[in-house]
Order: sequence, then structure tokens, then C-alpha cells
Amino acid sequence: MQKPKNAESKAMAVALEIPDIVIGRLPIYLRALNQLLQQGQTITSSHELGQRLGISSAQIRKDLSHFGEFGKQGTGYQISHLQAQLKQILQVDREWPMIIVGAGDLGRALAHYRGFIQRGFRVVGVFDVDTSKVGSGNTDWSVMHTDKLTEFIQSHQIRIAMLAVPAENAQAACDQLVAAGVRGILNYAPITLSVPEDVQVQYIDPVMHLQKMTYYLE
Amino acid sequence: MQKPKNAESKAMAVALEIPDIVIGRLPIYLRALNQLLQQGQTITSSHELGQRLGISSAQIRKDLSHFGEFGKQGTGYQISHLQAQLKQILQVDREWPMIIVGAGDLGRALAHYRGFIQRGFRVVGVFDVDTSKVGSGNTDWSVMHTDKLTEFIQSHQIRIAMLAVPAENAQAACDQLVAAGVRGILNYAPITLSVPEDVQVQYIDPVMHLQKMTYYLE
Repeated sequence: MQKPKNAESKAMAVALEIPDIVIGRLPIYLRALNQLLQQGQTITSSHELGQRLGISSAQIRKDLSHFGEFGKQGTGYQISHLQAQLKQILQVDREWPMIIVGAGDLGRALAHYRGFIQRGFRVVGVFDVDTSKVGSGNTDWSVMHTDKLTEFIQSHQIRIAMLAVPAENAQAACDQLVAAGVRGILNYAPITLSVPEDVQVQYIDPVMHLQKMTYYLE
Repeated sequence: MQKPKNAESKAMAVALEIPDIVIGRLPIYLRALNQLLQQGQTITSSHELGQRLGISSAQIRKDLSHFGEFGKQGTGYQISHLQAQLKQILQVDREWPMIIVGAGDLGRALAHYRGFIQRGFRVVGVFDVDTSKVGSGNTDWSVMHTDKLTEFIQSHQIRIAMLAVPAENAQAACDQLVAAGVRGILNYAPITLSVPEDVQVQYIDPVMHLQKMTYYLE
């Protein structure tokens, strides 16, 4: 099969207008492939992936077909190959430096989370307005005062930030991130942010998930 | 307008098969209404909500129309009324006791999070296999050993749990929760869980969100 360079597959994706919901499923597939590889498996199928993920095998084949041909009918997918292709498509075949704004309980838990590095992301700095928190950290990052935020983003060319500040401070922190050059924000504050069109925001709010579950509970 | 009892509106919802994606947007609307109320506003419109949330006003009106009539053309919604109705529909017009499995950085950050109580949920217990963590806590909860998990779930009639354990322990912990009676699991472990049909699982994995953002970054 062809191995399109990422820029090409990206151009193709934009040209064909791959639905955002398809893009959102690629990380799910990638995570399942990682698990299968860890378990020592080398070949999988859309059927097996579908069963693991609760997604139909037809959907998986259709999603992947947007990006080329990854397997042959009947022989399945070579996991390491599909994994490499998905990493390239999602641009996580490299390591993205990332900062966290907010060094409260959640910000620190995120900073200590070991699951980022193996999947393409490295926390390189944590920022807080509270000077008493400044200075703690580990080999990768330390807590710095928010005064240093703009300079750090610019000198380290940071494009991605996680926002773990109280709701009432989130929009101001977001504005500062965007002005300094951040283009992707993972927002943990329970508030919808206003950003320019070229900035992406993703939201994590556990209560949203809980409230959706209680709808269905007897 | 009619005020259907929750059981009735639920029966109606099931009968009409309200799409899951619509249910998923109700907590977003509820959160926005909470914010508007906090800002002292009493009336809003689908147009204003849509602008805040980046959702079309037509979509909002259509979503809400599944559950009855909440506003009149031209006069907008009375926020406190719509808020009360959404709470009833989502069944968060009450307080759900909730446990956390895993008292690591993330589990403790979740246990300390103050955003649950005002939106329908109260952490009443935290569980860990590590005996050195047992005993710490606050007035609402303390860390207990996992040995006590089943008994606690049954005696406190817990239906909802948050899972904040390492990936390799997540399925076993999930099985124990389900066997004890939990019917909704918010899973922070980066792994897809197998559960019976009558158990709901929602997933929070920050890397999924990050990997979706990097797809779009230049």
C-alpha cells in the first residue's frame, strides 16, 4: 500500500472533508491497537477491534478507508503498521510539549500523570498565580508563576495547554494562552470558553458525563 | 406548560427514542443556564445559549422540544424554570452518592473537587488497595480498603462510581463494582471496559482529546 506523507494525507483529509466525528474515533482505535500490541498480538481485524470497542466493524473499516487501505479483506490489519499510520495521521508520531495552567489538586495530578509521554505529549511546565506553589516539580517540569507564562510559551513554542483553574479565572487564562500562541486548549474548568476560530478547545467535565449517566439510571 | 413527572417524561423519552447525542447535550445546556443564573440573568433565548455554546439555536430548540415546550416564540426561556426541568429530566434534582476507586493523585484530586455537590453528586467514599492510604479523608469521605468495597456499595446503595486506577487493574475493579450493584461508571483508566448491557460506562481520557487536537494543528 501507499504510505502517504502526513502532509499529503492531511491535505487529502481536508479536501475530502473527513467528518470531525471520524477524527475523534481515531485516538480510540490507536489506544486499542496499543493495548493489543502490549498483549503481544501482531494482527487484528475490524471485527476484533469492533468487539473490543463496541463499534461496528463496518464503521471501523469505513473510518479507516478515509485515509487509505490498511488491510486486506480476510487477512486483517498488521497492528504495528496501522498503529504507525494512525500516529502519523494524528501527528503524534512526534512529542508535543505541553503546559498546564493551574497547580491545584487537578493540575498537579495531571502533571504527575505518566500516561502522556508514551502517547505523544510531555508536560514541560506548570503555572499558577500562587507564589507559594512556585518551584515544586520534577525533572520535566516545575511550577512557575503565571507572570512567566507568555514568555515560556513563546520561547518553547508551546501550542498545547491544559487549563485546570477555577471557572471564574478560566476565560482570562485562556485569553493569555491564545495571545501567546497556544492553539489547542484542553479545558477542565466547567465553563465554555470563547476563542478565535483558529484555536481548538476540548472540554473535560466529569459532571457532564455523570449527568448523562443518571438520565438512564432507574 | 405541562409539568410531566420525571417518570412520565422518561417514559416518553424512551417511547420516542430520544437520540443519545441529544441527552448528551442536556448537561451542556444545564451548565450554561447555571452560569447565566449566577450572573444574575433570569431570561435567555435559544439564540443566546447557542452563541455561548457554539451550537445553533435551531438545534437547541429541537433538542428541548423532545421534552415539552419550555419557552414561547419571541419571549425566550425563564432560566430557573428551564433549569429545574432539565435537572428533573437528567434526574439531578436529587443528590447521588458516589464512590471513587483509586486514591492516587487523580482519585484524590477528584475526591477534593468541589464542583460535584452543587450539580447533583456527592463523594461518600474512596477506596484503594494500598493500606497506607486508608484513613485519610474529610467530613464527607475517607479512604477505605478495597476489601470493604462490596459491602459499602450494598449498604449505601451506591449506583455510581468513578474509576481512577491504573489500566491494568481497571477491568477487575470494574467487575467488582458491577457485581456489587454499581450501574454507572465514569472510567479514567485508559482502557475500554467490558460490562453487562445494563451498566453504563463513560470515559475520560485526556490523551484522546489531545490527539484529536493535534490532528488539526499545523
